[in-house]
Amino acid sequence: MSTALVLASASPARLAVLRAAGIDPAVRVSDVDEDAVVAALPADTPPAAVVVELARAKAEAVASTLPAGDCVVVGCDSMLLIDGALQGKPGSAAEARKRWAAMAGRTGELLTGHCVLRLRAGELIAEAAEHSGTTVAFGSPTPEQLETYLATGEPLQVAGAFTLDGMGGWFVDRIEGDPSSVIGIGLPLLRRLLAEVGVDVTRLWSTEASS
Amino acid sequence: MSTALVLASASPARLAVLRAAGIDPAVRVSDVDEDAVVAALPADTPPAAVVVELARAKAEAVASTLPAGDCVVVGCDSMLLIDGALQGKPGSAAEARKRWAAMAGRTGELLTGHCVLRLRAGELIAEAAEHSGTTVAFGSPTPEQLETYLATGEPLQVAGAFTLDGMGGWFVDRIEGDPSSVIGIGLPLLRRLLAEVGVDVTRLWSTEASS
Repeated sequence: MSTALVLASASPARLAVLRAAGIDPAVRVSDVDEDAVVAALPADTPPAAVVVELARAKAEAVASTLPAGDCVVVGCDSMLLIDGALQGKPGSAAEARKRWAAMAGRTGELLTGHCVLRLRAGELIAEAAEHSGTTVAFGSPTPEQLETYLATGEPLQVAGAFTLDGMGGWFVDRIEGDPSSVIGIGLPLLRRLLAEVGVDVTRLWSTEASS
Repeated sequence: MSTALVLASASPARLAVLRAAGIDPAVRVSDVDEDAVVAALPADTPPAAVVVELARAKAEAVASTLPAGDCVVVGCDSMLLIDGALQGKPGSAAEARKRWAAMAGRTGELLTGHCVLRLRAGELIAEAAEHSGTTVAFGSPTPEQLETYLATGEPLQVAGAFTLDGMGGWFVDRIEGDPSSVIGIGLPLLRRLLAEVGVDVTRLWSTEASS
């Protein structure tokens, strides 16, 4: 019986990346209170550790709800580090407008944390967690372009108020790092973490994708 | 009447990037003999100019077949520059295996050329062309992983024998540049070229994508 991958994330972008990369995971969304997780961390926790701990909290929360079986649970968290502050989803057009005023023409670091839990017969037998950091150089949309972009609603519900794989892609000039980690699920990092828990990523590829 | 975008490329990956970025283009595929275009260039043509001239040839070929109207035709060409040689689609598993033996653990430069032709009532009124170069650092798949990847068929029909937006993404550790240009249509470059011919990219976004 093959090991199944459980994606502990509601993000359609992460799911799309995984599917395009040959894996059709089960999706289970945690109800982790992210603010509470962050509040429980020491105040001097480095940003890279924050996204890893959030990914871990989500993976553990989902793992605790699964029926006993063999699977790998993948938790994810992404934030944009800019001017020393971690930025999640803006939530409103006004906040996204403010963010873009600060971001345009500059660079930020998109941090993605992953935690992989390997369960056998419902028991945790191995785990691995790490982050990936990618520098993102933002373009400078004209004021009219920015308003059109905000009106699409796209930037409101994504970490850092931009996407790389959607309309935001017009306004990202370049990156240095792994583009899939910017979308929210870092494929080369996940490949390494899966290897650490003893799973070859190609064994998770679905027949349809690999036929 | 709005200006329509015509994508002069058969690449499903380019079409998917454009659609995700809010543009649903008309697709018209040229029958340009790429080898003949390259053979007609001076032998010392720099690689970046080769992909631009191929993009131009495709855009011009498609433009010549269009009924008189207002539109922007976008031609594209992508190749991987590695060890000083331009590499297109491998075409066979044997050739893709050879390429990966040379690529694994190393870096190459993915060059994408674009040519934008603006037509009004069927007449060429403006054009712009440029290339985008992105450094790609390849991972090192195990021999078994490489065979599984080759067996999917994915790397055989893509420039450079890899994808960033498919299963190849597991084996690309990082890039420096624009990820959309690696997939084959560089959004920030296309945004600039469209501006050069007097078209604001957001005017091309479809209502569905921007609602």
